[in-house]
Amino acid sequence: MGIHIGKQTIKLDTRPRIITTTSVVGKKEGEGPLNEYFDIVLQDDLNGTDSYEKAESSIMYKAVTETIKKARLSEEDIDYLFGGDLLNQLTATSFAVRKLNIPFFGLYGACSTMTESLSLASLMVEGGFANNVIATTSSHFSSAERQFRFPLEYGSQRNPTAQWTVTGSGSMLLQKSEDTQYPYVSYVTTGKVKDYGIVDANNMGAAMAPAAVDTIKQHFIDTGRSPKDYDIIATGDLGIYGRNITNQLLLECGYDIGKRYIDCGAEIFDQNTQDTLAGGSGCGCSAVVFSGYIFKRLLSKQLKRVLLVSTGALLSPTSTLQGETIPGIAHAVAIEGGESK
Amino acid sequence: MGIHIGKQTIKLDTRPRIITTTSVVGKKEGEGPLNEYFDIVLQDDLNGTDSYEKAESSIMYKAVTETIKKARLSEEDIDYLFGGDLLNQLTATSFAVRKLNIPFFGLYGACSTMTESLSLASLMVEGGFANNVIATTSSHFSSAERQFRFPLEYGSQRNPTAQWTVTGSGSMLLQKSEDTQYPYVSYVTTGKVKDYGIVDANNMGAAMAPAAVDTIKQHFIDTGRSPKDYDIIATGDLGIYGRNITNQLLLECGYDIGKRYIDCGAEIFDQNTQDTLAGGSGCGCSAVVFSGYIFKRLLSKQLKRVLLVSTGALLSPTSTLQGETIPGIAHAVAIEGGESK
Repeated sequence: MGIHIGKQTIKLDTRPRIITTTSVVGKKEGEGPLNEYFDIVLQDDLNGTDSYEKAESSIMYKAVTETIKKARLSEEDIDYLFGGDLLNQLTATSFAVRKLNIPFFGLYGACSTMTESLSLASLMVEGGFANNVIATTSSHFSSAERQFRFPLEYGSQRNPTAQWTVTGSGSMLLQKSEDTQYPYVSYVTTGKVKDYGIVDANNMGAAMAPAAVDTIKQHFIDTGRSPKDYDIIATGDLGIYGRNITNQLLLECGYDIGKRYIDCGAEIFDQNTQDTLAGGSGCGCSAVVFSGYIFKRLLSKQLKRVLLVSTGALLSPTSTLQGETIPGIAHAVAIEGGESK
Repeated sequence: MGIHIGKQTIKLDTRPRIITTTSVVGKKEGEGPLNEYFDIVLQDDLNGTDSYEKAESSIMYKAVTETIKKARLSEEDIDYLFGGDLLNQLTATSFAVRKLNIPFFGLYGACSTMTESLSLASLMVEGGFANNVIATTSSHFSSAERQFRFPLEYGSQRNPTAQWTVTGSGSMLLQKSEDTQYPYVSYVTTGKVKDYGIVDANNMGAAMAPAAVDTIKQHFIDTGRSPKDYDIIATGDLGIYGRNITNQLLLECGYDIGKRYIDCGAEIFDQNTQDTLAGGSGCGCSAVVFSGYIFKRLLSKQLKRVLLVSTGALLSPTSTLQGETIPGIAHAVAIEGGESK
């Protein structure tokens, strides 16, 4: 059974396995460099609904139900669902889950929610409390824009450090499984809220970078691992500027992650041709990049060990108006590839 | 180690104990019938800050830091904090936690968040993943009014079925402890999202009642317990109308909980003199009623066994404007009194 090691890490011993994942993305994401890795690419960002919020909810529903189907299970087999999104009061998730007959824990960690849900889902299996648990998150460019920034119709100019919220949802099925071919979760390092006084809501990569650095560094200290133990260390959505800050700060701490370091937000779009500025962001960003790109490369044994570090900026439009700085948080989950058949 | 029993319940075997709690409430709550049970009654709803949102955050910070102090621990001793509130993007909680050096899981389950956090905090101890975990939630009348309804200055009339958001925060410390005098968590029954088509955002008790009924009924089925096994069955914040619906629906299912049934929202205010209409509501409602009234009566052995069922309405102002109905959710946690010294 898992034990707490160091300050912020749980070492999992029973190998909760990720037996399947589903990534559903919007049209723009489907036109990006990771196109071939996504399971479902929508051609209509409204997904047949009459609002962006309803669309986001329907995308998560699709990701979750596809995952259950691919695992050849039914809703009744799923013990728990951990999920969240960026919408006020988590309505994308709640309205997706109301159509599912599954006990539900709602989470909010801004864009860190993917590894928050993956952490807790893994621990439910590790603790022996559940056999099948789903972890999922979603985001939608258009629902996020009008909630956090401006209505799309306003046509506001974007700052070069601004990011582009990913339209998509990723869903993962954690299972107590003896089938050693599937990747499994080995460590969960839970982040603390870090606030270094960044106030620019158009530069969230800078606000989240210190949290990512803190969690990655603590993960190495707690586990005794070093950057070279991972094929990929993937932060969630720091974008190109936040990625560079993270790289530099970790180097100053004595950890050179450069060669193996990717940021899901920097990978999902082609900055040169897609006009996405600093890169992708949103709860759905690390969700679809992991569920699509990373998971499939783990399955095919191209990757042996991955550290996924989703990163969240814990601001609200109200806190910004009230002059608050932007706290960040990052949660890390280590995933090991399964054995070759 | 805990095991999953029935459909939605985990039976905890290691007796994670609630060794201390703190309840911090506003002036109006302090004038209500439960006055003597609250640890701290504020005289200023702004708690010395310049906004209601900052006030709410400061109230949660006070509840958490007092809890740590009362347990004679320091921040570093706390392995995890599970918490949430009603504000968009959970800013009351995130901004409280940024001043604390504790790994953090943010939760959103509307007013069900107290038992959501208590469930997960207990399971972290049960699983052997942590020794000390805090569960906390907060709400604030004035921050909730302006976010969910109207600015206070508007002076809008209130519907008789409307509820009064509790200003307050409750915090509980779960511990792996051999000290048998403290109450402990024995069962966690996690709710599903239920939507029976209620559309009136001023009658949330009716929207949440079916979720409460579903979870309570499933708890009895999963555990083999019946209403008479509990001294108190306490729902979170259904108010007087939701309470009556719950009572009636459970009776129709063959469970007579009437004698031992209270609703935290109906208890916290005096409806006759405090003009609070259908009663209290908000994440803070079941948090302070449990942390104050119920926990102290468990400690003094006046109560032997309690089922706490916090209830949440998973709507947002946007979902209401888009014509959505109101889904509800309820999570139940069974708490057993400790032994007499």
